[in-house]
Amino acid sequence: MAEIYRYKMIVEYDGGHFHGWQRQYNSLQGDLKTVQGALQSALFKITGQTVVVEGAGRTDAGVHATGQVAHFDLTTFYPAPRLGDALNFYVRTQGVVVLHIEQVALQFHARFSAISRTYQYHIINRRSPLALDNHRAWHVINKLDGEAMRDAAQHLIGHYDFSAFRAAECQGNSPFKTLTKFDIQWAGERIMATIQARSFLHHQVRIMMGTLKLIGEGKWTQEDLVKIRDEKQRKLAGPTAPAHGLYLVDVGYN
Amino acid sequence: MAEIYRYKMIVEYDGGHFHGWQRQYNSLQGDLKTVQGALQSALFKITGQTVVVEGAGRTDAGVHATGQVAHFDLTTFYPAPRLGDALNFYVRTQGVVVLHIEQVALQFHARFSAISRTYQYHIINRRSPLALDNHRAWHVINKLDGEAMRDAAQHLIGHYDFSAFRAAECQGNSPFKTLTKFDIQWAGERIMATIQARSFLHHQVRIMMGTLKLIGEGKWTQEDLVKIRDEKQRKLAGPTAPAHGLYLVDVGYN
Repeated sequence: MAEIYRYKMIVEYDGGHFHGWQRQYNSLQGDLKTVQGALQSALFKITGQTVVVEGAGRTDAGVHATGQVAHFDLTTFYPAPRLGDALNFYVRTQGVVVLHIEQVALQFHARFSAISRTYQYHIINRRSPLALDNHRAWHVINKLDGEAMRDAAQHLIGHYDFSAFRAAECQGNSPFKTLTKFDIQWAGERIMATIQARSFLHHQVRIMMGTLKLIGEGKWTQEDLVKIRDEKQRKLAGPTAPAHGLYLVDVGYN
Repeated sequence: MAEIYRYKMIVEYDGGHFHGWQRQYNSLQGDLKTVQGALQSALFKITGQTVVVEGAGRTDAGVHATGQVAHFDLTTFYPAPRLGDALNFYVRTQGVVVLHIEQVALQFHARFSAISRTYQYHIINRRSPLALDNHRAWHVINKLDGEAMRDAAQHLIGHYDFSAFRAAECQGNSPFKTLTKFDIQWAGERIMATIQARSFLHHQVRIMMGTLKLIGEGKWTQEDLVKIRDEKQRKLAGPTAPAHGLYLVDVGYN
């Protein structure tokens, strides 16, 4: 029986270059460029092996990562640092890089072993368009009240049925999730949210941010947010905030 | 005699999209895309007038700005906010935006009235390539000692003959400049320098940063830097740091 060597890596990418994390085939456009696809192609070039790179978070098109975690298996041993350099040689020009790679036990699974996922969401709040951050943050023109957004966000921390903040296409078994952190900080024209949970529903962070933006604009109140949460209907929440403001920054393991 | 209306604006741009600030004609490539050229073309489309947009700092190709200041004159009055919106309509898709615009007295001159210019220089110090900041910061692999760089930078604050840190093509009359600030801060893998003076020699900030990088790597000492400064020879200083780590962040006026 062939030996199996499992590798864990931390990956950074510019989501603007990809149709999301997951490899997908579209009958009109053919094989779309995805982060998973780029890494798998590079591994095939390096090892000659067809592998599946399993990511902790299947980020949507446009969503960035500074701390995505993924694992894959090889049937031949490669020293981890050499594998990391070889991967970066192929993928760095495509908008993705391997920050760290190590050999791990077969018990480790990037997705199922994860006990926390941390996302950040960046808003730039000003009248003028963005020349430097146009694909890196959500540009909001109406003046936002950071304090109102921070106070409202507290009502989303804890164990709830988050159906109000769940995309119709969400395939999760249960609408119940436990948010362990929802910080909002602001400085100058930048507002940054940090949100942590074991796992999230599809589009959950972006729908929560789209809802908090309406509270920041003064259109809705904290009480409205509690009501939306408790009524559990997607149509009552705000619009889905754009993907390009979102970053997967950390995945935690035991 | 026609009335003249002078406008001052604050401009942000992604230097990676331009061959620098200043409009230039290259016999091989024709009219190169520059920030000044983009703004002048837009003003021609809006007003039908051929104007010169004078910038406070003639940034090189690749250098970014979050606070460039420029002025121009029109012979017809336009309300400043309308002019700003019209300019952004044309230039925003090209990587430049107007952050602020106002009518000013004819005595105001973006370049000659400036009493300070502040630049920031960003380094990302890590082994892996950059997926998100590859055109926004200098990627340095060798471990840098931020404290050594900060201590050394103190020797560049003050009034000196900066010939050692001056590009051969520099057209300034005098090699004497007065640096009023040279802060270096570091957090995680990011090192950021903030440098202020009334004005700078050509490539001065980039040559100083290229020199400080060698001190950060432990190849040179503070004493070497003092010697380089006092010997006043360009060939003794370090290489010119890349343009894409540099940002013009502020221009001060009385």
